[in-house]
Amino acid sequence: MQAVIMAGGSGTRFWPASRETMPKQFLRITSDRTMLEETIARVTSFTEIERVSVVVGRIHEKITCDLVAGMPVRVLVEPTGRNTAACIGLAALHLSRISEDDVMVVLPADHFIADPGAFSDTIRAAAEVAKTGAIVTLGITPSRPETGYGYIQAAGEKGVSSGLKYYEVERFVEKPDYQTAVSYLTKGNYLWNSGIFLFTPRVILDELRNCVPELYDGLLKIDQSIDDGNYEKILEEVYPGLPSISIDYGVMERTKNQILVFRADFGWSDVGSWQALYELRSDEYDSRGNLVLADSMIVDSENNLVYSSTDRKIALLGVDDLVVVDTPDALMVADVTRSQDVKRFTEMLKRK
Amino acid sequence: MQAVIMAGGSGTRFWPASRETMPKQFLRITSDRTMLEETIARVTSFTEIERVSVVVGRIHEKITCDLVAGMPVRVLVEPTGRNTAACIGLAALHLSRISEDDVMVVLPADHFIADPGAFSDTIRAAAEVAKTGAIVTLGITPSRPETGYGYIQAAGEKGVSSGLKYYEVERFVEKPDYQTAVSYLTKGNYLWNSGIFLFTPRVILDELRNCVPELYDGLLKIDQSIDDGNYEKILEEVYPGLPSISIDYGVMERTKNQILVFRADFGWSDVGSWQALYELRSDEYDSRGNLVLADSMIVDSENNLVYSSTDRKIALLGVDDLVVVDTPDALMVADVTRSQDVKRFTEMLKRK
Repeated sequence: MQAVIMAGGSGTRFWPASRETMPKQFLRITSDRTMLEETIARVTSFTEIERVSVVVGRIHEKITCDLVAGMPVRVLVEPTGRNTAACIGLAALHLSRISEDDVMVVLPADHFIADPGAFSDTIRAAAEVAKTGAIVTLGITPSRPETGYGYIQAAGEKGVSSGLKYYEVERFVEKPDYQTAVSYLTKGNYLWNSGIFLFTPRVILDELRNCVPELYDGLLKIDQSIDDGNYEKILEEVYPGLPSISIDYGVMERTKNQILVFRADFGWSDVGSWQALYELRSDEYDSRGNLVLADSMIVDSENNLVYSSTDRKIALLGVDDLVVVDTPDALMVADVTRSQDVKRFTEMLKRK
Repeated sequence: MQAVIMAGGSGTRFWPASRETMPKQFLRITSDRTMLEETIARVTSFTEIERVSVVVGRIHEKITCDLVAGMPVRVLVEPTGRNTAACIGLAALHLSRISEDDVMVVLPADHFIADPGAFSDTIRAAAEVAKTGAIVTLGITPSRPETGYGYIQAAGEKGVSSGLKYYEVERFVEKPDYQTAVSYLTKGNYLWNSGIFLFTPRVILDELRNCVPELYDGLLKIDQSIDDGNYEKILEEVYPGLPSISIDYGVMERTKNQILVFRADFGWSDVGSWQALYELRSDEYDSRGNLVLADSMIVDSENNLVYSSTDRKIALLGVDDLVVVDTPDALMVADVTRSQDVKRFTEMLKRK
């Protein structure tokens, strides 16, 4: 099995720790390793490190190569980000030259998974099904009426693989409003869209040809350039002009073929905000509910997240429910429940 | 008139901005000048810069000399701090060699005064009285039942100088509890002890001989050393052994002579905490009550004090009533009403 880690994100939701040059996947926020390193470690539980590819934007090529130095992973560079359909197409193109029928699992570099064993079991079971030529995805059993995720509506049970049931996908659903999210939770057959997919290169390239032909034509040119020995040049010319569309919109919602979904329950989070990070590391709180990822002195303060990428001393006195983020050139103090609005700062900085 | 600015304090109440090597009088907190510079500027409204002395501890000699570079002020260095009686005695000893009967006003370097004109008028009026051989102090009309200050109980009106009334001092009173402070406010004849005194060198040296003879004996040895040309050496030997006592305890509460007090009302504060600083700069708040002394971005946040001694960007989101203090090696986020407890951090650091 091949693993394709999509590390092209340029998130700003972890400002001031995350920047354009340092998005979430390169931050040490879920552990003392970067999220990309965590993801690489996770996929090596079900495939060899030689079969791991990381797709990154050019501006993150150096930081990525530094992180994976010494590891025989394949680093594929996108001249500019063109969303997940192009990213997956590029990886499929390269992997199809090794084997068109070896399953590839594609997954984001910046997600958190609490139970890597269960994750690995689910991937193996899903790969068995993808090997037959199906498009398979993982849907996460929702634990709350989350409005920040897309959903997958599952239809009837389709089969069992390695003891795990899988279902037909009825449809992919946009991020719902709160009332709709509550109804999804009640109905039970709505799952969080994890952004994790499994298919063979042959299958996904076929889908791209049918569903996003303009993208496929570009990929063909890039493929030809490998044989012609001018890959770098053609990639640089062609890739930025590819349609920017997600694999969800481009393929999953357009395909005539049946997509299958495994119901997964391995403690998944897309770690979409400082608040999400605070909540998912609850087993590391001090006795007063503080998550302390910095050299700190804390007096009479509860339920705070303190994060620093410096060795500065951070002191809290009589404060609750804050996110305090310290970096060499910027510092943020926010109400933890306002974490979603951190982007206000990056917008303000962009305007300047 | 001579002015003696006591800059020996080693306050920790403005941690992390204040440190042992950088106490409050050297901070730019009340304006974009240090409090010492503000105090020097203030006294030059009633005396010449050549008649200004600054008394500092040895560890602050360099920073002081850098600040007053180019100004013809006298810098007197204490080998170690021995409280205000020794500090004033040392200054009086030097000034008595210029003139025993020129009034000297002694005042702390780290106080804030809102109305320098009224301050200057009061000092001039008080100096007229001190010139006659009296010990004169300034008592501040209290505006609230403050428990953080000592008080002066005033007795009957004694006279008028330059249109300003002065009174006999009944007694100096320790910091009261809240109920007592409320009763002082009601009674009307209790004034805040400003720590500002006026007397001639002859008068204060006489008082020190009578009230704190051990201190006076030490001063005599130091005085002799000036004639002998080995001042530095003898100061180093004698000064650290002088009794450490405040001028209030050592002289004001012991003297048999009548002390006089001017009732002053020029917007005085000893700026004893971050909260006090926040309150006294209320005319500089932004439209939502934030006092911003840093490069900041503020979203949906009210009544915060943001101070930085770096050029770091400081972002606040949805937070109220905080003090955020940023320095190169430490950062504090505190509830503004807990400002008095900042010393908890310096104690913690000392224990380490």
